[in-house]
Amino acid sequence: MQRLSERKIIEIINSQCSTGCANEAYGFLGTGDDCAVIEIGQDAAQGRLAITTDTLVEDVHFSMRYFSPWNVGRKLAAVNLSDIAAQGALPRWAFLNLALPEKWRKKREDFILPFSQGLCSRLSEFDTILAGGDTVSCPDRIVLTLTVIGRLGTKSALSRSGAKKGDIIYCSGYLGESAAGLMLLSSSKRLISKRKIAGRRAFLRLSNRHLDPVPRIELGRLLLERGLATAAMDMSDGLATDLAHLCDMSGTGAEIHAHSIPISRTLKVACRKIGLGPTPLRIALAGGEDFELLWTVRPERQVEMEQAARRISGVTPFPIGRITDGRGVWLVGNRGKEEISYRGYEH
Amino acid sequence: MQRLSERKIIEIINSQCSTGCANEAYGFLGTGDDCAVIEIGQDAAQGRLAITTDTLVEDVHFSMRYFSPWNVGRKLAAVNLSDIAAQGALPRWAFLNLALPEKWRKKREDFILPFSQGLCSRLSEFDTILAGGDTVSCPDRIVLTLTVIGRLGTKSALSRSGAKKGDIIYCSGYLGESAAGLMLLSSSKRLISKRKIAGRRAFLRLSNRHLDPVPRIELGRLLLERGLATAAMDMSDGLATDLAHLCDMSGTGAEIHAHSIPISRTLKVACRKIGLGPTPLRIALAGGEDFELLWTVRPERQVEMEQAARRISGVTPFPIGRITDGRGVWLVGNRGKEEISYRGYEH
Repeated sequence: MQRLSERKIIEIINSQCSTGCANEAYGFLGTGDDCAVIEIGQDAAQGRLAITTDTLVEDVHFSMRYFSPWNVGRKLAAVNLSDIAAQGALPRWAFLNLALPEKWRKKREDFILPFSQGLCSRLSEFDTILAGGDTVSCPDRIVLTLTVIGRLGTKSALSRSGAKKGDIIYCSGYLGESAAGLMLLSSSKRLISKRKIAGRRAFLRLSNRHLDPVPRIELGRLLLERGLATAAMDMSDGLATDLAHLCDMSGTGAEIHAHSIPISRTLKVACRKIGLGPTPLRIALAGGEDFELLWTVRPERQVEMEQAARRISGVTPFPIGRITDGRGVWLVGNRGKEEISYRGYEH
Repeated sequence: MQRLSERKIIEIINSQCSTGCANEAYGFLGTGDDCAVIEIGQDAAQGRLAITTDTLVEDVHFSMRYFSPWNVGRKLAAVNLSDIAAQGALPRWAFLNLALPEKWRKKREDFILPFSQGLCSRLSEFDTILAGGDTVSCPDRIVLTLTVIGRLGTKSALSRSGAKKGDIIYCSGYLGESAAGLMLLSSSKRLISKRKIAGRRAFLRLSNRHLDPVPRIELGRLLLERGLATAAMDMSDGLATDLAHLCDMSGTGAEIHAHSIPISRTLKVACRKIGLGPTPLRIALAGGEDFELLWTVRPERQVEMEQAARRISGVTPFPIGRITDGRGVWLVGNRGKEEISYRGYEH
């Protein structure tokens, strides 16, 4: 969950840490990959761990107006597991920091029980145990931090920096549904009355994509173990921003095709009938929190990768464009080419 | 940094996690030891890691009225390193979650630069690198989470649960100074005018013990590597509470001697001249955030341990009492015996 506006903060911290802490090996705070990779033993043969940590702040990243405590727990787990998936690691341990308002102490239990049920249900789906943490008071709002540690074995992790000219760009699912779901969940009364007409099913699907994203652990494992991806990351800030990060890290450009962006029928229906504002394409490009994987493949391994992804991880990979030797992310549509780098989503 | 009042929260989460996450091995959130211990490889020969995480909330755990940003960074590091010390591990990697108010964006840099200098200076003293993290907005206040991972090698970590009847109880430094420092730092004007009379040196020493505690990493390593401690923990909630935890985990009781509690001349002077309220002994028993180690030793190894602690870790260990086969923590003084279990400090 990185924000462009946080880059300055990251640079300042990095400038201190590189002198003070000999931090050359790993990028700090999202300047690099989705996880930090550490070598456990004295040599790489003893294996590596991938470590990620994300903080969710009430009314910044989620609202209790439309999140149930159970969903907050599920999402906190999924957001972190998605980072682990992006490195191809196997999640194993989680640590929870829970900062809760003191004043609603009586209601605290009403939050904690379903929250921890949700958190643990998502973690246990991926054999991850809650191994420790801390619980403190925070007067104004809920602040949640989860840290997840995954095993990498002796393989190098998937990384954002390996894409080469000619590689095919893929994503693991429909884009923009989570952002549309958020629009519906937080919408005004006028929109909600229209929602009834458009059908409860579409509303449920889109809102569920925002409330309960699915981390692509099996897909990440597959891409790493078979060496099928040249670069990979998870999508939290929208395709335009996420792909720009991947290109920057790889020193390449990218061309994506408007007609190839996976947009679901549900999203189209919601845009037309409910009138969400932006077009489905704009939502798919700029809408954040998809938590799908974004990765690149050498053309000669396209068929092998697509078959394996469908058969083993149960995911249909969508090819959306190609890596170029230029700079920036370009959208190719009916009206020509347009640069869309970093036209993404801010939390 | 555990609070008795948080026990209920921990129990609820544990009840969910033990079914959902097969969390038998480690206590969650402070019901167990200071760190979680995880086995890295397929077998213990590949070594273990000790992991701890602590959250500090502005105006709950620290106040910007008397903490400089540099001190906040130093303390955040020290609080976590102290947990690592309590397990006898060697700290190696740190992860920072930074939640900062959006509104003082202009002042953000004024905080972040000295904060990260302080954080990294403390971490680098113990060869610990900042390897990752997350940065988000939090509208009302600063919320900081640090997670530190340490190496244990193939040895089992120090634990709270190994104390036996007859063991001698030790602590690694003067108690109550941090609590007295906090009283002075947050005190009224009347107290501050008295402070001038009592001398600037005493004020600086006590306040510095609160602002910039020293993690006892070398001592923890020594106790683990030579097998000198039967049980150990770090002191964050005051002797009365911390020792009660150690006794509960070990299934024992303890007797401590009022005249053996290490109380510095500075604390006595401050109490007498400034009039802090409680007696020096009460502050030493109930005052939190000492971040000294508390440990137990078999009587036959007392001399060996004391010599090694002084020579190798540069710490003077204070014997303060003895483990008994009873229950609870008892203070033995001139007026007889008094139970003081859990009469500790709440953050």
